[in-house]
Amino acid sequence: IAKEVAKLLEMKAQLGDEGKPKFVLKTPKGTRDYSPKQMAIRERVFSAIITCFKRHGAEVIDTPVFELKETLTGKYGEDSKLIYDLKDQGGELLSLRYDLTVPFARYLAMNKITNIKRYHIAKVYRRDNPAMTRGRYREFYQCDFDIAGQFDPMIPDAECLKIVHEILSELQLGDFLIKVNDRRILDGMFAVCGVPDSKFRTICSSVDKLDKMPWEDVRSEMVAEKELSPEAADRIGEYVRLHGGLELIEQLLQDPKLSQNKLAKEGLGDMKLLFEYLTLFGITGKVRRCWGQEEPRAPQLRVLMGFCVPQICFDLSLARGLDYYTGVIFEAVLVQQENNHVEEPVGSVGSVAGGGRYDGLVGMFDPKGRKVPCVGVSIGIERIFSIMEQKVEASAEKIRTTETQVLVASAQKKLLEERLKLISELWDAGIKAEMLYKKNPKLLNQLQYCEDTGIPLVAIVGEQELKDGVVKLRVVATREEV
Amino acid sequence: IAKEVAKLLEMKAQLGDEGKPKFVLKTPKGTRDYSPKQMAIRERVFSAIITCFKRHGAEVIDTPVFELKETLTGKYGEDSKLIYDLKDQGGELLSLRYDLTVPFARYLAMNKITNIKRYHIAKVYRRDNPAMTRGRYREFYQCDFDIAGQFDPMIPDAECLKIVHEILSELQLGDFLIKVNDRRILDGMFAVCGVPDSKFRTICSSVDKLDKMPWEDVRSEMVAEKELSPEAADRIGEYVRLHGGLELIEQLLQDPKLSQNKLAKEGLGDMKLLFEYLTLFGITGKVRRCWGQEEPRAPQLRVLMGFCVPQICFDLSLARGLDYYTGVIFEAVLVQQENNHVEEPVGSVGSVAGGGRYDGLVGMFDPKGRKVPCVGVSIGIERIFSIMEQKVEASAEKIRTTETQVLVASAQKKLLEERLKLISELWDAGIKAEMLYKKNPKLLNQLQYCEDTGIPLVAIVGEQELKDGVVKLRVVATREEV
Repeated sequence: IAKEVAKLLEMKAQLGDEGKPKFVLKTPKGTRDYSPKQMAIRERVFSAIITCFKRHGAEVIDTPVFELKETLTGKYGEDSKLIYDLKDQGGELLSLRYDLTVPFARYLAMNKITNIKRYHIAKVYRRDNPAMTRGRYREFYQCDFDIAGQFDPMIPDAECLKIVHEILSELQLGDFLIKVNDRRILDGMFAVCGVPDSKFRTICSSVDKLDKMPWEDVRSEMVAEKELSPEAADRIGEYVRLHGGLELIEQLLQDPKLSQNKLAKEGLGDMKLLFEYLTLFGITGKVRRCWGQEEPRAPQLRVLMGFCVPQICFDLSLARGLDYYTGVIFEAVLVQQENNHVEEPVGSVGSVAGGGRYDGLVGMFDPKGRKVPCVGVSIGIERIFSIMEQKVEASAEKIRTTETQVLVASAQKKLLEERLKLISELWDAGIKAEMLYKKNPKLLNQLQYCEDTGIPLVAIVGEQELKDGVVKLRVVATREEV
Repeated sequence: IAKEVAKLLEMKAQLGDEGKPKFVLKTPKGTRDYSPKQMAIRERVFSAIITCFKRHGAEVIDTPVFELKETLTGKYGEDSKLIYDLKDQGGELLSLRYDLTVPFARYLAMNKITNIKRYHIAKVYRRDNPAMTRGRYREFYQCDFDIAGQFDPMIPDAECLKIVHEILSELQLGDFLIKVNDRRILDGMFAVCGVPDSKFRTICSSVDKLDKMPWEDVRSEMVAEKELSPEAADRIGEYVRLHGGLELIEQLLQDPKLSQNKLAKEGLGDMKLLFEYLTLFGITGKVRRCWGQEEPRAPQLRVLMGFCVPQICFDLSLARGLDYYTGVIFEAVLVQQENNHVEEPVGSVGSVAGGGRYDGLVGMFDPKGRKVPCVGVSIGIERIFSIMEQKVEASAEKIRTTETQVLVASAQKKLLEERLKLISELWDAGIKAEMLYKKNPKLLNQLQYCEDTGIPLVAIVGEQELKDGVVKLRVVATREEV
């Protein structure tokens, strides 16, 4: 009996094993597949962005998806904990790239390039908390455009902002706002507010959270966690509520405290130049919207409520988290409209582009510390995809996922050979053609396949056509035949 | 004194640290960057391949660069040791994709897709021994085209081979040979040669090495390492030297041993059908070359020496390493010509495409084991890049890395504002335009920039033009001006 029981239990164990799923069928956390339909939308967005980058004379490069771990070390400040490391399987220690900027700087230093304008479109990796419905993933595309080289001030910087403006206008995502600031203005501001030098970067990180947290919470982080004096925090609070255009820059250049600080003065002088160039580009004008009554202070809300608002704005609360910026910084956000499809609270709008000047990064890689000044922009397109997808869903547009021009079909049975010969001729002539992979498909099924996939033409071979030495061509939409 | 010495030593230590390079400046082993020029060549190759895939009606998908580790487990046989794992940083265990086929199967099972024709172009990762001069990398692109679904036999399989033929012809890489075999014929052959069932896969791996090792070495691996009987090995040796076309298939269908084996018979029957379809596609004909005298046995040598040779060949020595193939398998190799630029011994030609039928892979992912028959081809383009690069180097062709149509230049100083206004107008009109990022560039430098980068036109603003309200347009090549 014991023997029989053991045997039965073994059989049961085997059955149990076969019955259960072999493993969880999913993509890794924070990642996703792209279906053919999503790819069709993605390629449209890419195409608009690449067209813009090429319009501005950019070359293209590519780098490996992973870098030596030490290449990435010390470049991202507090965000470094989000880097994906590869397992040590013997050999070099590797990490997945966190952005395209550090690999670009490594590429420049390694190849001793001091002058280039390039774009790079590739996936980057961050072990962040994904929020996939809002387009925040652990694997996501960046579309970067950067200008490296020693040039006259603010001309390349202005071009980067022009590019953001062109792309966001072209994609018709609705209202947007490009916030601009300068690390030197921030650092000068911290200095005149009484922040100790050693706390510049960490206080900068706190300021960076102002787009997600109210000032009161940021202030208490500064004071309680980061041990900044409440007076210094309050002085910062006065500055970071400021935003505007050329008139604000002029005003701050007269500010009794800021104007005494060398860094801030330099930053403000360049900011003035930048806004003059942007005006020549015709993108500092205001856009009029008329939905609200009382003018709120926050620029996003002002757009939302329909006031006369700029698309580019000097904003002292913009900080950006990454350590490597040294000059101008900027970030573009979409500003939600009344008739939006996205269910999200007002104000929690997404950043869709960002960038700035990083004059010291290449020097960190050069054995002799030789610097190559750089400025660039990164379009974060996952959120743009999400919006475009929703737009397509909401519209009646039917997206084709193939480009097939003609289906090679047969009207009777036993014509597989004829179909194979004809389709081969079409392919060799460069015509996009498909056929059903069946020996004897029904004509109705073949026509239905065209309806389903949007193929506009059917080339029909039948006994009569073979006798006559012709092919019948049918327009699917109109049923016309020749 | 002791205090002073300590102070000096500390200073020295600090200086020493600053003097030495901060780290090794390189890409990880087996990887590389692509320069703008290399990218221009790469995009040409991609464009030819994508055009072909679209001509055959394929949709496109994308999947994450990493998968759950268990998704890849047990799919690659002896090659599994080459998979890159990510470090366990808490959360799921992940690995970089080893090919695009397993992620495709996972995608089908996960989305319950039973019918799709798709392509996927992306990087895959193998911790192999890199041979970068020969186009073998640890990070490399695969261009995959696969047809999934239950169809009549060999029609999709024949299309995959047609695609390989079209792409290799289109790229003009020189002579190629597509070897075709079937896993069922191999398994049947192993059975009739007396290989025990349990050793089919490992003996198959040995046969797979025949393109790199002579038969004697493969035989001794089978006998010494894998403990196959010498008689069985010799019987295999008789079969694997066979290659040919329809006539060989007919001959083997009459083979007294093979024809008794159910698997082999099925495989041979389908192989016959396949060659009939390939004949209808017009790609089983022979290509005549006349360089040599005596006809050698090896098909590669026959091509090399100029005999009347096929571009597609049924070859019993073709095994392919991957575990998941269940039916037709194939591999395309480039056959070196006399006037080659690559310095490599004859015979060590590279595989540039491969593929086959894998009817069981999707079922491995489905909780209920539901199968989706699949057949596909993967173009391994790194070697194609290498060859194309060498061809471009050898030719006089100058490759442009940008598409800029016009440079906005100034003839005198102090015209930056005018240039900014003009270039902005051009960009807004969709014209690809550049300018030098200098306040007062010399006209000669601006013209030189056009010569260097191939920009065909210069739009010149000068004081006279401003007065006249015109712009002077100059053709760089002819110096014509309007």
